[in-house]
Amino acid sequence: MNMARSPDQPNSQRSEYFQYWDVSASFDVTYRVICANGVLLSSNPLLLQLGSSEKTGREDHGRRLVFVESEVFRFYSEAINRFFGKGSRIAILNATEKTKNLRLVEHAVQQMTQFGINRRSEPVIAIGGGCLMDAVGFAASIYRRHIPYVRVPTTLLGIVDAGIGIKTGVNFGLHKNRIGSYCAPIAAVLDTTFLATLPTRHIRNGLAEVLKMAIVSDATLFQLLESHALDLVDACAKSSPVSLRIINLSIQRMLEELEPNLWEHDLYRVVDFGHTFSPVIEMFKVDRLLHGEAVAIDMCISTVIAARRHLIDIAAADRIIALTNRMGLPVINSDCTAANMQTALDDIVKHRDGLQRIPVPTAIGEATFLNDVCLQEVMEACEYLQRLFDEGALG
Amino acid sequence: MNMARSPDQPNSQRSEYFQYWDVSASFDVTYRVICANGVLLSSNPLLLQLGSSEKTGREDHGRRLVFVESEVFRFYSEAINRFFGKGSRIAILNATEKTKNLRLVEHAVQQMTQFGINRRSEPVIAIGGGCLMDAVGFAASIYRRHIPYVRVPTTLLGIVDAGIGIKTGVNFGLHKNRIGSYCAPIAAVLDTTFLATLPTRHIRNGLAEVLKMAIVSDATLFQLLESHALDLVDACAKSSPVSLRIINLSIQRMLEELEPNLWEHDLYRVVDFGHTFSPVIEMFKVDRLLHGEAVAIDMCISTVIAARRHLIDIAAADRIIALTNRMGLPVINSDCTAANMQTALDDIVKHRDGLQRIPVPTAIGEATFLNDVCLQEVMEACEYLQRLFDEGALG
Ligand SMILES: NC(=O)c1ccc[n+]([C@@H]2O[C@H](COP(=O)([O-])OP(=O)(O)OC[C@H]3O[C@@H](n4cnc5c(N)ncnc54)[C@H](O)[C@@H]3O)[C@@H](O)[C@H]2O)c1
Ligand SMILES: NC(=O)c1ccc[n+]([C@@H]2O[C@H](COP(=O)([O-])OP(=O)(O)OC[C@H]3O[C@@H](n4cnc5c(N)ncnc54)[C@H](O)[C@@H]3O)[C@@H](O)[C@H]2O)c1
Ligand SMILES: [Zn+2]
Ligand SMILES: [Zn+2]
Repeated sequence: MNMARSPDQPNSQRSEYFQYWDVSASFDVTYRVICANGVLLSSNPLLLQLGSSEKTGREDHGRRLVFVESEVFRFYSEAINRFFGKGSRIAILNATEKTKNLRLVEHAVQQMTQFGINRRSEPVIAIGGGCLMDAVGFAASIYRRHIPYVRVPTTLLGIVDAGIGIKTGVNFGLHKNRIGSYCAPIAAVLDTTFLATLPTRHIRNGLAEVLKMAIVSDATLFQLLESHALDLVDACAKSSPVSLRIINLSIQRMLEELEPNLWEHDLYRVVDFGHTFSPVIEMFKVDRLLHGEAVAIDMCISTVIAARRHLIDIAAADRIIALTNRMGLPVINSDCTAANMQTALDDIVKHRDGLQRIPVPTAIGEATFLNDVCLQEVMEACEYLQRLFDEGALG
Repeated sequence: MNMARSPDQPNSQRSEYFQYWDVSASFDVTYRVICANGVLLSSNPLLLQLGSSEKTGREDHGRRLVFVESEVFRFYSEAINRFFGKGSRIAILNATEKTKNLRLVEHAVQQMTQFGINRRSEPVIAIGGGCLMDAVGFAASIYRRHIPYVRVPTTLLGIVDAGIGIKTGVNFGLHKNRIGSYCAPIAAVLDTTFLATLPTRHIRNGLAEVLKMAIVSDATLFQLLESHALDLVDACAKSSPVSLRIINLSIQRMLEELEPNLWEHDLYRVVDFGHTFSPVIEMFKVDRLLHGEAVAIDMCISTVIAARRHLIDIAAADRIIALTNRMGLPVINSDCTAANMQTALDDIVKHRDGLQRIPVPTAIGEATFLNDVCLQEVMEACEYLQRLFDEGALG
C-alpha cells in the first residue's frame, strides 16, 4: 500500500492538500477447458472431481447443486439423475433468449439459498446451452459475491464460444447482455455427444461462431468449413473426426484471442466480428433469429462494408458470403431497417467506449477495425445483400 | 496458454483420454482512497478529474451520471446542482437498508441505460451512505459487465468502512448482502465535512466499525476511543483534529487488513469481527438496529465467548464492553434469541465455507478465530450481557 501525505494536515478548504492511500492487488485466474466426452457416464468421475474439497482434505459427499436447462433435461434426465447422488439437487431452468433476464437469475439465487450451498467447495454445475450458462454463471458470480461453478455446454455454440470464456450475463429489457460479469468457471467441460440431440438449426447456429473464428483468424479453418459445408451439421451431430477437428481448431483460436484480453481491457477485439449490428436484430424479435444467425447477418454486412471500401478483395468477400449461405445461415433479413441499424451504431459506440471499433475482414483469416462507418454505408451493404438474396445469386 | 493432449484422439467413451487447455491471466487492481474535504466546492476539480478521459486525450465535458441518496440530496442539493454541469444527470435514490435490494439495482441500471453512459470513460459517481454505495457499486459492477465508479461516502460508516473496500452488494429477502460483487471503485473520496449533518445515531453507528478495528488490530486506537468516548460524536460532526486522527488511524488499519486479501481468498478475516451474528439480528427487524449497532452487539457476544474460554482476560473484556456502552452503542438486544443465533451459526458456516471462523479478541488489539462455538455458549454470552444490562452494571 502506498500512502502519501501532504506536509500539512488535511485541510477542509484547500483541495491541494490531501492525503491518500493507493491500494493495489492482483487477482490470478486459471480455468481449464476440457474435452471429455461421456461426462454423464456413471463411471466417469470428472464432473464431481472438479473443485471438490477433496483437495483441501475435507469431506466431500459429491453434494452439488446442478442447474439443467429444461429441454436438455427432457433428453438426459435419466443419465443426470443416475449420475448425481442423493445429496445433490437438480434444478430445472427454462433458459432461453426470452427468459434470459434478471428474473431467471433471481430464481437461480433462490435455489442456491434453499440448497444452502457452501461458499467455496460445492461448485454449482450448469448444464445447458449458452442462455443457461450465461444466467447461471451470472448468478454464481454474484451469490455471496462469487461461488465456484462448472460449465457443461450442451449446444455447439456453447462448446465453441459461450462455454469457454469468462463472460456471463443476461438481457435487460431489449438490451442484449446489458448486465453481467466477468467470472471464470473453475472449468468448462466440453462433451460433443450432447450434439446428437441438438436440433439442426441450433447446430448451424453454433457453426456461425466457428465461421467467425475462421474469417478473422484462420484461413485453414475456413477451407475446412468450405470443404465440408454441406455435411457439417451431420458430422457435428455424430461427433465425427472432421467435426472434432473443426471444433478443436475453433476453440484453439478462440482461446488464443481471449486469454490475453480476458477482461476486455482492450476493446479492439476481433472476436467481436459479427457482434456490432447483431445485438439489436437479435433482440428485435427474439423468436425470429438465433444468436448465431444474427451474427451471420452481421458478418455479411461487415464484409460488404469492407469490400466496398476495397479493404478486402471481392473474391474473398464473395467466398465469405457464399460460405455463410451454404452453411444454411441467413445473410440478411427484414429487421435490418435503418432504424435498427442506427440504434445498433449508437449503442456500439457506448459499448466500445466512444469509438465504433467495428471488426471487418481484410482477407480470409485476417481483420481490422473501422471507426467511421455511417448509416448510409450500412444500409447500402444491407441492400446489396438483399439484392443478392432476391436474385437467388447466393446459389 | 497451456495445452495438453492425450496421445490418441479424444475418445467418446473413455474419460482417461482427454485434451484440455489451461487458460491463465491476471487482473491488476489499483484504487485510491483520498481524504479531501470540500469536494463539492465549485473550485475543487477533484471529483471530475477522477477517471476522466482527459488522460486518454479524448474530449471530456464532465458528463457524469451522479447517484445521490435522497436524504443527502435534501441537505446538499444546492452544492450538488452547482457542482455538476449541464451535461450531467443527478439521479436521486432512496437507498436505505430496507430498499437495498435488487429492485434498487435495477432502477440504477435503468438510469445508466437512459443516460447512455460510455463504458469506460464516464465514471458513475455515488454520493451517499453505505447502502447507496453498496447498491450503486453493484449496479456499476454489472452494467455492461462493469463500468468505472467513484465512491463519495457521506456517513461515518461509509468513510471508515463501506466506502473504502471493493465489496458491493444488496440484500436478498432477509439475507443480508446475499448478492454482490468485488469491484474496486476508481477512487473513494472521503470528505468528513458531510458528517456535520449526519444524525448522532448514525455517527455512533460508524464509530462501531472504528471500535471494531481498534479491538482486533490497534490498542492505541482503542485508548484514543476510551479517552474521547463521550465527545467523539461531537468531534466527528465538527471534523475536529482528534476525530480526524481517529478516523485516519481506523482507515489505515482497515486498508492494511483489506489489501492483502481484497477478494477474500482467505476467509479468516479479523475485520469480520462483529459480523458473525449481526447479519441475522440486523435483518430480523430492519428498522430496529443499524448495521454498526448490530456489529456492536455481536462484538460484545464474541468478546464474552472469548472471556469465558479464558482466551482474553476479564479486565480487557470488561473494557471492551464498557467502551461499547459508553460510546452509546447497544451491547445486547431482545432479538438475540436462540432461534436467531442458530440461524446465524448455520449461515456463517455456509458463508465461511464449512467452518465458523468466528473472530474473537484475545487482547485489546489482537484476535483469533473459533471453529467450535455451540449455540449454548452463544446463549450464555447473551444472557450474561442481558444481566449486565438489567443490573445497570454497564455504568
Ligand atoms: N458468455 C459468452 O461469452 C457468450 C458467447 C456467445 C454467446 N453467448 C450467449 O449464448 C446464448 C445462445 O446460446 P445457445 O445458442 O446455446 O442457445 P440456447 O441456450 O437458447 O440453447 C438453444 C436451444 O437448444 C436446446 N438444447 C440445448 N442443448 C440441447 C441438446 N443437447 N439437445 C437438445 N436440445 C438442446 C435448449 O433448450 C434451447 O432451446 C445467447 O444468449 C448468447 O448471447 C454467450
Ligand atoms: N461494502 C462494504 O464493504 C460495507 C462495509 C460496511 C457496511 N456496509 C453496508 O453499509 C450499510 C450501512 O451504511 P450506512 O451506515 O452509511 O447507512 P445508510 O446508507 O443507510 O445511511 C444512513 C442514513 O443517513 C442518511 N445520510 C447519509 N449521509 C448523510 C449526511 N451526510 N447527512 C445527513 N444524513 C445522511 C441516509 O439518508 C440514511 O438515512 C449496510 O447496508 C452495510 O451492510 C458495506
Ligand atoms: Zn456470439
Ligand atoms: Zn460492517
